Amino acid sequence: MDKSKNINFGLWLLYSRTHQLIRKTRAREFDKYGIWGRCAAVVEMAMRMGRNATQAAIVNETNFERNTISEQLSRMERDGIIIRHRDLDRKNAIRIEVTEKGRKIYEDSRNHDSIDSALATLTEDEKLELWRIVSKIREKIIKDLNLKKAIVYPPSDPNEF
Amino acid sequence: MDKSKNINFGLWLLYSRTHQLIRKTRAREFDKYGIWGRCAAVVEMAMRMGRNATQAAIVNETNFERNTISEQLSRMERDGIIIRHRDLDRKNAIRIEVTEKGRKIYEDSRNHDSIDSALATLTEDEKLELWRIVSKIREKIIKDLNLKKAIVYPPSDPNEF
Repeated sequence: MDKSKNINFGLWLLYSRTHQLIRKTRAREFDKYGIWGRCAAVVEMAMRMGRNATQAAIVNETNFERNTISEQLSRMERDGIIIRHRDLDRKNAIRIEVTEKGRKIYEDSRNHDSIDSALATLTEDEKLELWRIVSKIREKIIKDLNLKKAIVYPPSDPNEF
Repeated sequence: MDKSKNINFGLWLLYSRTHQLIRKTRAREFDKYGIWGRCAAVVEMAMRMGRNATQAAIVNETNFERNTISEQLSRMERDGIIIRHRDLDRKNAIRIEVTEKGRKIYEDSRNHDSIDSALATLTEDEKLELWRIVSKIREKIIKDLNLKKAIVYPPSDPNEF
């Protein structure tokens, strides 16, 4: 058996299931504020992008399918978290504005005690090493998938974050 | 600002978005075989657990909510991938049997060229380091969430995989 291939598959299983566990601990934290995870992620992006927050930019950064994001934005608009505007300058662009209610969610979602607790088991060097290794994987996949317009955030250098 | 907290949040964003990218490259690979990702994961677990494959064991290992798994298993049964049996010895247990069609999916999903390609950017030492660091996070969250019955797979020691 090709031992190296074997480790790759195990590493993917480990990575993926740990991701699910972090989501689970994060969901418990969000429950306190009545937030659901992907909504918080979109609000965070839209706030950071400001005037450049468009549906297309959010698709590019999350790497979710366009339909997934579109449905999510519809739901968020219905819930009064965002407003979608057709951009007058660029007719095809859909600009995302975060409402007051959305800003409140943003503030609440900046609390990440669950993440802090999970990562408290690592030394600062281990955190930087994890950042470096995961960034390498990310760069490779962006190349493999030929995602020329992908927004690389957070940056691969943690000092630029 | 608490710089350390800041890095934690960025690390989570990086980890999560890279996970999404790996899922995306994996989905392209699966498309070739007409498989969808979570289905392949459940079949893999059921095959490995053999006679011990129950709905409860799969909930424990994936850390998904019971309802999520239950809906997924219903769909897989409808698609002829698995059969669910009420266990005669333990009346509350629902045992999962993988059909011939499910076994074919299992064989196809063992191909993971997409994962191999993504991880080809890492040295063997970096892979082992990633395994070690992610395992530490996993152990911490299992403790934080008090998941006493969680099935820890893959093992924290890659040599045992």
